[in-house]
Amino acid sequence: MKILILNGPNLNLLGKREPDVYGNMDFESFFGKLKESFKGADLYYYQSNVEGEIINKLHEVGFSYNGIVLNAGAYTHTSVAIHDAIGAIKTPVVEVHISNVYAREEFRHKSLITSKCIGLITGFGLEGYAMALAYLSNKTN
Amino acid sequence: MKILILNGPNLNLLGKREPDVYGNMDFESFFGKLKESFKGADLYYYQSNVEGEIINKLHEVGFSYNGIVLNAGAYTHTSVAIHDAIGAIKTPVVEVHISNVYAREEFRHKSLITSKCIGLITGFGLEGYAMALAYLSNKTN
Amino acid sequence: MKILILNGPNLNLLGKREPDVYGNMDFESFFGKLKESFKGADLYYYQSNVEGEIINKLHEVGFSYNGIVLNAGAYTHTSVAIHDAIGAIKTPVVEVHISNVYAREEFRHKSLITSKCIGLITGFGLEGYAMALAYLSNKTN
Amino acid sequence: MKILILNGPNLNLLGKREPDVYGNMDFESFFGKLKESFKGADLYYYQSNVEGEIINKLHEVGFSYNGIVLNAGAYTHTSVAIHDAIGAIKTPVVEVHISNVYAREEFRHKSLITSKCIGLITGFGLEGYAMALAYLSNKTN
Amino acid sequence: MKILILNGPNLNLLGKREPDVYGNMDFESFFGKLKESFKGADLYYYQSNVEGEIINKLHEVGFSYNGIVLNAGAYTHTSVAIHDAIGAIKTPVVEVHISNVYAREEFRHKSLITSKCIGLITGFGLEGYAMALAYLSNKTN
Amino acid sequence: MKILILNGPNLNLLGKREPDVYGNMDFESFFGKLKESFKGADLYYYQSNVEGEIINKLHEVGFSYNGIVLNAGAYTHTSVAIHDAIGAIKTPVVEVHISNVYAREEFRHKSLITSKCIGLITGFGLEGYAMALAYLSNKTN
Amino acid sequence: MKILILNGPNLNLLGKREPDVYGNMDFESFFGKLKESFKGADLYYYQSNVEGEIINKLHEVGFSYNGIVLNAGAYTHTSVAIHDAIGAIKTPVVEVHISNVYAREEFRHKSLITSKCIGLITGFGLEGYAMALAYLSNKTN
Amino acid sequence: MKILILNGPNLNLLGKREPDVYGNMDFESFFGKLKESFKGADLYYYQSNVEGEIINKLHEVGFSYNGIVLNAGAYTHTSVAIHDAIGAIKTPVVEVHISNVYAREEFRHKSLITSKCIGLITGFGLEGYAMALAYLSNKTN
Amino acid sequence: MKILILNGPNLNLLGKREPDVYGNMDFESFFGKLKESFKGADLYYYQSNVEGEIINKLHEVGFSYNGIVLNAGAYTHTSVAIHDAIGAIKTPVVEVHISNVYAREEFRHKSLITSKCIGLITGFGLEGYAMALAYLSNKTN
Amino acid sequence: MKILILNGPNLNLLGKREPDVYGNMDFESFFGKLKESFKGADLYYYQSNVEGEIINKLHEVGFSYNGIVLNAGAYTHTSVAIHDAIGAIKTPVVEVHISNVYAREEFRHKSLITSKCIGLITGFGLEGYAMALAYLSNKTN
Amino acid sequence: MKILILNGPNLNLLGKREPDVYGNMDFESFFGKLKESFKGADLYYYQSNVEGEIINKLHEVGFSYNGIVLNAGAYTHTSVAIHDAIGAIKTPVVEVHISNVYAREEFRHKSLITSKCIGLITGFGLEGYAMALAYLSNKTN
Amino acid sequence: MKILILNGPNLNLLGKREPDVYGNMDFESFFGKLKESFKGADLYYYQSNVEGEIINKLHEVGFSYNGIVLNAGAYTHTSVAIHDAIGAIKTPVVEVHISNVYAREEFRHKSLITSKCIGLITGFGLEGYAMALAYLSNKTN
Repeated sequence: MKILILNGPNLNLLGKREPDVYGNMDFESFFGKLKESFKGADLYYYQSNVEGEIINKLHEVGFSYNGIVLNAGAYTHTSVAIHDAIGAIKTPVVEVHISNVYAREEFRHKSLITSKCIGLITGFGLEGYAMALAYLSNKTN
Repeated sequence: MKILILNGPNLNLLGKREPDVYGNMDFESFFGKLKESFKGADLYYYQSNVEGEIINKLHEVGFSYNGIVLNAGAYTHTSVAIHDAIGAIKTPVVEVHISNVYAREEFRHKSLITSKCIGLITGFGLEGYAMALAYLSNKTN
Repeated sequence: MKILILNGPNLNLLGKREPDVYGNMDFESFFGKLKESFKGADLYYYQSNVEGEIINKLHEVGFSYNGIVLNAGAYTHTSVAIHDAIGAIKTPVVEVHISNVYAREEFRHKSLITSKCIGLITGFGLEGYAMALAYLSNKTN
Repeated sequence: MKILILNGPNLNLLGKREPDVYGNMDFESFFGKLKESFKGADLYYYQSNVEGEIINKLHEVGFSYNGIVLNAGAYTHTSVAIHDAIGAIKTPVVEVHISNVYAREEFRHKSLITSKCIGLITGFGLEGYAMALAYLSNKTN
Repeated sequence: MKILILNGPNLNLLGKREPDVYGNMDFESFFGKLKESFKGADLYYYQSNVEGEIINKLHEVGFSYNGIVLNAGAYTHTSVAIHDAIGAIKTPVVEVHISNVYAREEFRHKSLITSKCIGLITGFGLEGYAMALAYLSNKTN
Repeated sequence: MKILILNGPNLNLLGKREPDVYGNMDFESFFGKLKESFKGADLYYYQSNVEGEIINKLHEVGFSYNGIVLNAGAYTHTSVAIHDAIGAIKTPVVEVHISNVYAREEFRHKSLITSKCIGLITGFGLEGYAMALAYLSNKTN
Repeated sequence: MKILILNGPNLNLLGKREPDVYGNMDFESFFGKLKESFKGADLYYYQSNVEGEIINKLHEVGFSYNGIVLNAGAYTHTSVAIHDAIGAIKTPVVEVHISNVYAREEFRHKSLITSKCIGLITGFGLEGYAMALAYLSNKTN
Repeated sequence: MKILILNGPNLNLLGKREPDVYGNMDFESFFGKLKESFKGADLYYYQSNVEGEIINKLHEVGFSYNGIVLNAGAYTHTSVAIHDAIGAIKTPVVEVHISNVYAREEFRHKSLITSKCIGLITGFGLEGYAMALAYLSNKTN
Repeated sequence: MKILILNGPNLNLLGKREPDVYGNMDFESFFGKLKESFKGADLYYYQSNVEGEIINKLHEVGFSYNGIVLNAGAYTHTSVAIHDAIGAIKTPVVEVHISNVYAREEFRHKSLITSKCIGLITGFGLEGYAMALAYLSNKTN
Repeated sequence: MKILILNGPNLNLLGKREPDVYGNMDFESFFGKLKESFKGADLYYYQSNVEGEIINKLHEVGFSYNGIVLNAGAYTHTSVAIHDAIGAIKTPVVEVHISNVYAREEFRHKSLITSKCIGLITGFGLEGYAMALAYLSNKTN
Repeated sequence: MKILILNGPNLNLLGKREPDVYGNMDFESFFGKLKESFKGADLYYYQSNVEGEIINKLHEVGFSYNGIVLNAGAYTHTSVAIHDAIGAIKTPVVEVHISNVYAREEFRHKSLITSKCIGLITGFGLEGYAMALAYLSNKTN
Repeated sequence: MKILILNGPNLNLLGKREPDVYGNMDFESFFGKLKESFKGADLYYYQSNVEGEIINKLHEVGFSYNGIVLNAGAYTHTSVAIHDAIGAIKTPVVEVHISNVYAREEFRHKSLITSKCIGLITGFGLEGYAMALAYLSNKTN
């Protein structure tokens, strides 16, 4: 069972960026912990600030992996192209956000991609990635 | 540890209503299963079709329980009063929807209550309730 | 053949309220006349000012009665929950309004529920209830 | 007692056009049946695809006939001129649509003409014309 | 010097239609008076309820007449085609409305055609036609 | 002289709920003080979280009492039904809000009910109820 | 018979300002010509760039003069206060614009004041003032 | 204790202007009565039709007076500058309107200044000024 | 193989109207050339300024011809009725515009009819008609 | 004569992605066929999922090639930067879409780039690329 | 070389008003410093809270001075008249704001006047005036 | 002191692209001049057409450089991701545009990034970069 965690723009700064919103753990450390908790699955991690590289990665794994956990960051609110890429692949995608986007600025309330995902988990901090993995693990077992 | 599952309008028809959208298990049976899985917590269940009774229940448990899992059904999209009730109580609330509301009619894309909840879980079927309970159990342990 | 006439908020004041808009006959008297005209059907009447009680009643009769004539009053313009309730039951529903709602204030021009009903009859005064009953009688005979 | 049934654009294709929406009976046959059912009234029928010819006909009969049953088709959603014509004549007009226009595309939810009619009957198939005639017969008797 | 007065839908009912808004003189009588006042010009009059016939008439006279006084009635608010027709011809067009359209319903506040006319005169009753003629006479003299 | 103070959803939590916005006195204590200040009038108090029960109460007292002071809470912004209920009764209604709703979230700036009330008093804390009572006392004396 | 011509902001620059839009005659010279043409009336002229001074002038003459020709310039599109002032006085007001405001920027298409004037004349250059005076002269004779 | 009553555009016409909306007492007479009722306070009155003069006055008294009762008239709906002026001074401001602005035209429903005032009193006629004074007197005592 | 070229309002003026936008060849001459280029097909041409006559023609040929090339002119932006007519017939329709409508006024950016056509060709001048014919010839061969 | 076909995001999946919408031929095979049909021109092909790489390519060929056929995929609806790039180069660009974008989701109806292209061809399947090439070949010959 | 610094409403309170937003130096002191720094130019300063007086000043200097630095304060967001005044004069105008208006309330994000200015400098505190003067000095040297 | 000038899409074409809007000097030449004028600072220059590469660069220098001058070109109007990147770094950012974006197309009037920058300088041509550098030099000295 192969699952990719795919992070979008500015998430490489996790731990450095607005720690009151996003916490101060960097994602690589967190990813190490996740791998320990989900030993039954092969977990992969990829991050990019380039919209098109996120699409490339979705295409690359989207016909062979068992699941994708996607936090598209700010592209969530502007990218029809990622919406289309999710609709074009076979692998199920779960959308995750660290913060509760509906409790922040108005422009973060609209997601262009949720309609093509299985579902959305938002507001539970980094724990949201674990919830998504747990769901995908159960489902694909 | 006391946790309430609180369901809003029309969710009493689960299993009878649009089974292609909501599945065909009634909620009481599902609740029995949940109680078996979460033996460390006292789970309670309440459902009402009346907006004001949902508010009454939030007030009743909202200063003593450890968590509330709320699926406000259609009132999600129209009730400022439930938004205010969640903001007025102390107990943390997790919002759940069975279907992916963002893949359905436009008027279901707007939630008036998410901003006052910890977070939102939508699209994972009944499994979403279990995800919310797992989160609240961890948090309050 | 069982048919329910279901009236929403403020319709209990019929005859007392804005008689230039709604006439000055109270609904109970009118219902007596209707029963005489439609002797082939068992007619029932229920009125409530509480949105959730209207939903409760729709659930209660909506899997066994042959038809429902619904005047949801002001909830017509605000209730997604009643929209969902009509979509969740089996009994066909005909929407009726006494006045021509499109000739009144702008906010009365939008109905949230018509799309889940068989059809809409508006503007014909109390006669509209009789037209709806005539349609349902023919259909269910 | 003279009553005109006035149909707008594309209704001449009834029976040929989208039969799942509009049924497969042509209007002339249906009109024959209507005349048998309403022997106490002189029924007339006119159809045009030209907005201005519908206005001409409203002017022609609108000061002498006892009633008009109008299905303005697509002009319902765009014609201020027909709205004005109904407002300018004396004969009462009942608006009819065959399908439930509120359960179709968004742009069919707005009627520019209802506010000048006595009332609206929508969603009951061809039966809607009979309901309108019944109402006008009672009223003008 | 040839000038056409061109009236749109429902203006043939002048004198019969809503006399409190439009007065009770029919347009033919008024046109007789206008001809007496403007003896230096050849005045013509045409009215149609058909949008396309108004366009036909604009084309017919729009390359030879010296001026057109246009009251497009309700088509003022909906017709891009008349807007285009005025833009396509050579003869200058003055837009006239009898009533003050900005003191009536919201939908009458928007004119699609004024931008292609020389100017607009609205609210002065039938006197508006004379004001337009006076302007065109001066200009083309 | 009978006057009812009618409070809507979440106002039963006064004193417990967001004390920086609403203060920390519970309404029952405040009501005791009011009764002392307005000894010339019979004051009554009713609170409900159920929209329909607020309507029931308006109907119950709305043809015999001398005045109603209404704080409809969150229903202020969503309830056409309460708007209609106020329009249907005879007793004059004064709308009160404790906080300055125009200095809070955008969705609290729109009131659906003010147009049917005599007037609105907002932003003066609990003092607003006294101001409303003073107005009604003077008026009905 | 006393008639005031009242010009709003920037119209003092006439002749200097954007001559391709407004021509190159200054208003004082033009006013001299007008007085010669309308010898039967006492004509007055006032211009101000201050919104409140325009209101002051409307109040000052609005209960004794026979007519006002108002070109409120840019305040046309933003001033509710001038709208109210016109509604508060007795003297009839005719609105004039030199250019065809509907053929210019979008924000000039909306007039806040026309609904309180007798009518509007726009697009005829300085000639529009003469047309307005002619109308007022006829009317008040 | 010094309190200013500050009135905006057209309120100098009180008693002459639309008496069915505003009553027929002029403000000066009413102010005389107010001074008698509030002998414990030094009351001042200022009215201007000029937006900037209202701002000047707010600046002039806004660091030394104990309260301001402001009826900004039509500037209520258009003036960001008055909004800023109230936010810039120290003296508390109470907003008053004579009529119930929410029962009038749509454009009067939006106030740009309430969010910077303590509160709003609307719909109680001239009595509203007295209510505001009573509130300010109590508060500053 | 029968193909109709159907032109809407003002296209009869081609060659005379705004030659910088539409060129200066009249359509009849161009149609002669088209017939020479497409000898394998029977080409027909019809133009009308009347919306309803365009609908009539669509009905007349829409169940027997092999293709229709439609330039609906200004009705493109306003006609729900033509939208419905295309949806009601069997013959495939290709939409053509001579100019690039998206590089012109905002109101020309919205087409009500494209969704019912096979496709749209816009901006290639008269060549667009040839492109549409080439497509239809290939397809129906 | 050099012509570039430039495809945007997700078009590399052609043949694999939603075959009912886009057909099941991959673009490389189709491009081979195109080269055979257009032997008189040097055809080039480039695809990228990265918005900025599409801009880079437009810059690279946009001052020397004779034409560009651009299918910008989802960036069509969101990219002001591609709009600007087309406006900044010399080579003419023809916009192509495989499906009829106006018959799909609302957000695909708006193109940000058409106004800078010569024209648009949408809805004709892969054939649309050939139509664009034919046009460019004729034009640049 | 003559340059005017022109400040709009409430800027006379600089140093007293919201010092966290605007700092606590009064403008006169700052102006003294500016004059020292820009000895090569004749600097003038004018402030008014009256919209029309700002227009008067623009007219007065706008045909002879070499530059104007304009901070129109709140009128920036509401004044078409100042927009027109800038467009009517010859002297170049540079728009300055002390705070970053785009980081404040939504209604401050829209400027009605920038389009008629050379450019805009916002967010640099009082330093912004110096930047504008530096630009104008260079330009007019 | 290290300062980066960061240019977005299409700015590499400066000097070649629309010279009437952007002038005809290429940016590299201009950058040479800037370095001469600002010898006290280490100036760096980077341009990319790829949104994600602009974000990468902001991250790379955003915790060590003393200032960034950012002209995000068309991404200004569409990129939430750049908005977030500026908010996530420590280095102060000044936004610059060469042309006056508010005097161009409507879609250029909205900037998504200004709220996270210190301030904005727009409309002063290439000089704007120098103004930004001067500001940053002063500030960080």
